[in-house]
Amino acid sequence: MSDAASLSDPIPLARDLIRAPSVTPKDEGALDRLQAALETLGFTCRRYPFGEVDNLYARRGTARPVIAFAGHTDVVPAGREAAWTNPPFEATVLDDMLWGRGAADMKGAIAAFTAAIARFDAAGGDSAGSIAFIITGDEEGPAINGTKPLLEALHAEGERFDHVIVGEPTNPHTIGDTIKIGRRGSLNGVITVTGRQGHVAYPEKAENPIPVMMDLLARLKARTLDNGAPHFQASNLEITSIDVGNTAHNVIPENATAKFNIRFNTAHRGDDLKRWIGDEAKAAGLGWTGRIALDLKVTGEAFLSTPDWFTDLLSDAVEAETGRRPARTTGGGTSDARFIKHYAAVCEFGLVGATMHQVDERVPVADVETLTRIYTRLLEGYLRGGRG
Amino acid sequence: MSDAASLSDPIPLARDLIRAPSVTPKDEGALDRLQAALETLGFTCRRYPFGEVDNLYARRGTARPVIAFAGHTDVVPAGREAAWTNPPFEATVLDDMLWGRGAADMKGAIAAFTAAIARFDAAGGDSAGSIAFIITGDEEGPAINGTKPLLEALHAEGERFDHVIVGEPTNPHTIGDTIKIGRRGSLNGVITVTGRQGHVAYPEKAENPIPVMMDLLARLKARTLDNGAPHFQASNLEITSIDVGNTAHNVIPENATAKFNIRFNTAHRGDDLKRWIGDEAKAAGLGWTGRIALDLKVTGEAFLSTPDWFTDLLSDAVEAETGRRPARTTGGGTSDARFIKHYAAVCEFGLVGATMHQVDERVPVADVETLTRIYTRLLEGYLRGGRG
Repeated sequence: MSDAASLSDPIPLARDLIRAPSVTPKDEGALDRLQAALETLGFTCRRYPFGEVDNLYARRGTARPVIAFAGHTDVVPAGREAAWTNPPFEATVLDDMLWGRGAADMKGAIAAFTAAIARFDAAGGDSAGSIAFIITGDEEGPAINGTKPLLEALHAEGERFDHVIVGEPTNPHTIGDTIKIGRRGSLNGVITVTGRQGHVAYPEKAENPIPVMMDLLARLKARTLDNGAPHFQASNLEITSIDVGNTAHNVIPENATAKFNIRFNTAHRGDDLKRWIGDEAKAAGLGWTGRIALDLKVTGEAFLSTPDWFTDLLSDAVEAETGRRPARTTGGGTSDARFIKHYAAVCEFGLVGATMHQVDERVPVADVETLTRIYTRLLEGYLRGGRG
Repeated sequence: MSDAASLSDPIPLARDLIRAPSVTPKDEGALDRLQAALETLGFTCRRYPFGEVDNLYARRGTARPVIAFAGHTDVVPAGREAAWTNPPFEATVLDDMLWGRGAADMKGAIAAFTAAIARFDAAGGDSAGSIAFIITGDEEGPAINGTKPLLEALHAEGERFDHVIVGEPTNPHTIGDTIKIGRRGSLNGVITVTGRQGHVAYPEKAENPIPVMMDLLARLKARTLDNGAPHFQASNLEITSIDVGNTAHNVIPENATAKFNIRFNTAHRGDDLKRWIGDEAKAAGLGWTGRIALDLKVTGEAFLSTPDWFTDLLSDAVEAETGRRPARTTGGGTSDARFIKHYAAVCEFGLVGATMHQVDERVPVADVETLTRIYTRLLEGYLRGGRG
């Protein structure tokens, strides 16, 4: 990895990263391997350990504008290793595919962005601005010791970013499908209703918590949160569990618990949703002598990166390499973009996610090459004003 | 126990029965002790074992009308024996109380009826009709190998009963409170809704079973089954459990299960309720591609013993001994009266049930004496036409 020119092929670094079994919160040398490559390319690297997690910040140059690549070296567990066609941490290349845990999510994209910088450097010529890497080892885990405190620390040190590209596997089927220009917010709720136990033959002596729970859940489910927002699908509330655990047919239970999740768009703020849920709980509990307890956590607010010239630049690069204009979406789960959006405009584009988190995670070698070319065009456009 | 005269005191037999730890389905000699007493009083006894349970039938005389005492020698477990003030199977008499598992439910009442016969005999004089005992060892358990098959067998042999008194502890607080002249029916239901699992961020790819379950339960709960029936409180449906068991906040579950119980009066038949529940399940499942499975069991139909001269005779006996006219109710749980009502008019009257099924089950010794006198008056009235 000591030769900058050799880094223009993304596959060796991708394989090197996959061979580090960096299941959250373990690192197993993954950040060392990336740091060595970035130092070869002239980056200054610093580590930011938080709790049991290590994180890496790398920067080259001091001028604005700053384009940063954000990603994670941690991966989800391999699951049943015997079920894999090729071992999850051997980074086998077979049948024009790169196999292994993290190939799609997202060691392949990290290697592609690194290779894009090597190619950008090899092309030569003047350039403005600078490049940074914001890499965490805690994206697949609780995400408490990762991107969030890392960005807080960097901001405190005066580091500023203008545009960030997150290397998440945004494409459902084919590279070029989709770029993400925002994410929905997410709220997790736990409701506990406590009544008074008793015998079903004497309901007047008991307080059954279940009808109160059903009333509250029905109120929450009845509301049409919205009919969508620009670039967003409609917000949605899903009840994910209701649990009483009463095995006796003749006993009125004391407690009922329910869990739900709201994925919400920019028509809502987490605090407003919490207030609304609290109001509905009060209404459902009117005249009820039991107790309704709410535990509500907003794990991310909805956000939209203003679709500006950076998004267009990325879209143009994708179209130039794949022949297709990518859709701009905000669907799917959450990502660290929810933290980054407080500091910079952020878009997400990476490999095809079809096999992510599954046994036999893999990506076509050709896709890693295509992604490298797209990232190279992005850098050219951003730092040299060229449009490929 | 070989002396008929000595049997006119109910306490020795009650203690003898309590000392047999006859926790369902065990007998531990309880039926032997009762049989010995009844044979002393001239009864012919036969055993009817079903499965692992033994049952006793005793009859004296062949003439109609036949008055039968129905009861059970089995008891519920003692629970934590160390928590008892006096050991549960020692039948301690202390502070004018008879302590022990089964004192109230219902070995005390069996002894009282036996003693009543001894007193009835001692009083002498002509009598018409005959007396029977229908005693099971499976009332507190599944009630499958007890009164039901016993009555079927006796009916097949040509045995007929005109009026049956069940010795359940019908009095909530004080002896003389209450006689039971019927019981509500009971229906147990289990609903299983099966959808398709998925990620909460992509609800369109999943089928969440919870809203369908909630809709069905809301339909069931919304119906006012009735506003009561003569001698009955209003029918009632209680949802006793809802269970999903999904621990992941971001997963839409595949299955939801709910349990409910209906206590219903004579305005309903079990089959009609089952049909109604089936119809509501169809309505809730309209347009739903998942599956709704119902498991509905009627464990007893509602019934009312026509309030006739037998009920009046029992009420008069209670009033003569306690000074209070007992209320006639149909509330509370089920009893073996649900099986007997197919064969004879049936009323229930016994001791005070306040401590039944609890640690420190006990009854006042004076109550056992009062109950013996009430039963004696009942026998006098029934078999000699006397009214005490």
